[in-house]
Amino acid sequence: MDSALSALLASVNGAAPPDDAAIRRHLDSLTKPQGSLGVLETLAFRLARLYGDPTPSLRRRAVLVFASDHGVSRRAVSAYPREVTAQMCHNFARGGAAVCAIARAVDARVVVVDVGVDAELNRAGAIVHRKIRRGTADMMVGPAMSLDDARKAVLVGAALAKELAPGLDVFALGEMGIGNTSSAAALTCLLADAQPNHVTGRGTGVDDCGLQHKRAVVAAAVRRVREAHGARASEPLVALTETGGFEIAAIAGAILGAAAVRRIAVIDGFISTAGALLAVRMQPAAADWIFASHRSTEPGHALQLSALQMSPLFDFELRLGEGTGALLALPTLEAASSLLREMATFESAGVSQSDRRV
Amino acid sequence: MDSALSALLASVNGAAPPDDAAIRRHLDSLTKPQGSLGVLETLAFRLARLYGDPTPSLRRRAVLVFASDHGVSRRAVSAYPREVTAQMCHNFARGGAAVCAIARAVDARVVVVDVGVDAELNRAGAIVHRKIRRGTADMMVGPAMSLDDARKAVLVGAALAKELAPGLDVFALGEMGIGNTSSAAALTCLLADAQPNHVTGRGTGVDDCGLQHKRAVVAAAVRRVREAHGARASEPLVALTETGGFEIAAIAGAILGAAAVRRIAVIDGFISTAGALLAVRMQPAAADWIFASHRSTEPGHALQLSALQMSPLFDFELRLGEGTGALLALPTLEAASSLLREMATFESAGVSQSDRRV
Repeated sequence: MDSALSALLASVNGAAPPDDAAIRRHLDSLTKPQGSLGVLETLAFRLARLYGDPTPSLRRRAVLVFASDHGVSRRAVSAYPREVTAQMCHNFARGGAAVCAIARAVDARVVVVDVGVDAELNRAGAIVHRKIRRGTADMMVGPAMSLDDARKAVLVGAALAKELAPGLDVFALGEMGIGNTSSAAALTCLLADAQPNHVTGRGTGVDDCGLQHKRAVVAAAVRRVREAHGARASEPLVALTETGGFEIAAIAGAILGAAAVRRIAVIDGFISTAGALLAVRMQPAAADWIFASHRSTEPGHALQLSALQMSPLFDFELRLGEGTGALLALPTLEAASSLLREMATFESAGVSQSDRRV
Repeated sequence: MDSALSALLASVNGAAPPDDAAIRRHLDSLTKPQGSLGVLETLAFRLARLYGDPTPSLRRRAVLVFASDHGVSRRAVSAYPREVTAQMCHNFARGGAAVCAIARAVDARVVVVDVGVDAELNRAGAIVHRKIRRGTADMMVGPAMSLDDARKAVLVGAALAKELAPGLDVFALGEMGIGNTSSAAALTCLLADAQPNHVTGRGTGVDDCGLQHKRAVVAAAVRRVREAHGARASEPLVALTETGGFEIAAIAGAILGAAAVRRIAVIDGFISTAGALLAVRMQPAAADWIFASHRSTEPGHALQLSALQMSPLFDFELRLGEGTGALLALPTLEAASSLLREMATFESAGVSQSDRRV
């Protein structure tokens, strides 16, 4: 394995050995019945452990939107034409996309990153240019990318996360890429040993015929990779190289880079979670730093979350991507951390404890 | 019926007859696949209808925390002693409670309202003083309050909502009151024709014996009211008068007052939702203006939501009250409204539509 990637993977560790009992004691001393804030308390506990800080803050937040094109999008697997990837990047940069509106609503920055869009994007706008190549190759007939490019894309995501980390407490991870539910479906099949029909959904909204065609394309790609590599088809770099895409690789990299500098990553829907699965297959310790936000309507998403043994916070029937669902989880994570930072204890507030009857 | 209360109820109307097709057209013109934001789109549509505004904003928000004591709390139905109601009000005023921490995390004001606390609360603090009486009477042996006080408590909530409405876009509704899950359980039984065992839970955390005792208390109160009033026991003012409490009445009033001036109310857990059920039984048109936030672990909460035909946005296993869960829904509502306000259209952004294959 390439030495820069090996070094990245070696730099990721799980939560530091913390004083779990002290965190629990603090949570239980706060002015509320013990456990009465349910999932919020679980989140608060987890955040305190990860940040090694009894009073963590998640106020400084951003969504990274990695964009790339896919060779397979020339096979009519999407309801939208290929040029929409570039058009939407400009829409992100101008603040007109759903992810931009939601980011403002939850007070997060939007960082758009071109890792493989098949166009020369406007260099005046607010787009971070890290293009590996103008789109991947068609996974149906051969590898989507070279091994070298696969590593590069992972390292680009990691480097960006590390670069931004000093000013951020938490990363939400989104994407844009016409055709990327097909690549993510094939990648998920390989990484999680799943059947194409179980993980291939309608994406942005193909009709019944479109879905049948898309399933056939994903199945053909998965068959080709399994025939070419046998048992090695489930190895993360093999699977990534064969199916793509650059944005999925960069998401995995951003998770690893964030984890290396002890920041959490909040994942979004099917594509973002494919990136999480890739990251965890490369380095299992990365799982500690990943928070699931929502369960999408894309059928493979529940399967991915189950493979990761992660439970989402909510199900709003989202299927847009861009990081929209991940953003919606940020206020809840901040609320959880604020309990530890801001609540009074029974003692400090002079509130009577339970089990003292009048 | 008292004329002030009749006037309040008459002033509540459902959503104005809007141009639904125009709202739908606008939503479908935005740069996202149609319907891809699932529940967010449903919320956006509903908000635009209610506010009669194609680009509503929910930025100015507050949680009203109505506090009161209950006669039934002298029967050891809670894990906490009665004086905790007053102690927690001072904790709210000093910003040390969970609702305060979460309100800061989601950028909402906290307004604490004494409608019946059995103590003279600190008048220097940030507490709104609207005390009807120092606690209700014991619902097991007789009416919790007089009919006159019941009306007063509803009108106090309504008046406060109207007073605050010019500076607010949305109200979250919470409460504090040791013993109030018992009152809310009895009230819910009467309003929704339910069995005490189905709606009486552990509240702040009574043990198995405590739960058995609490169920017996609620069942006795419900039996007494049904014997005294027959079919009239399910009438909202009868049920309220018999079971209490003042904070539940005030929550119902706040919903009605907010609806009268065309503002939405976001309800929280079991107590807050008992207030919603009361409001809707008094004026069915109020239902349009109520948004459910979460489903709590209190077993009667799902029953209440079902009686209201409302679906919660999430389930975080909360059972604290105070308005904590309602607050967590506010960023999602603001995100939904921001789609309408801030997203570009396919045309304005120059993004290609679906069904044009390359």
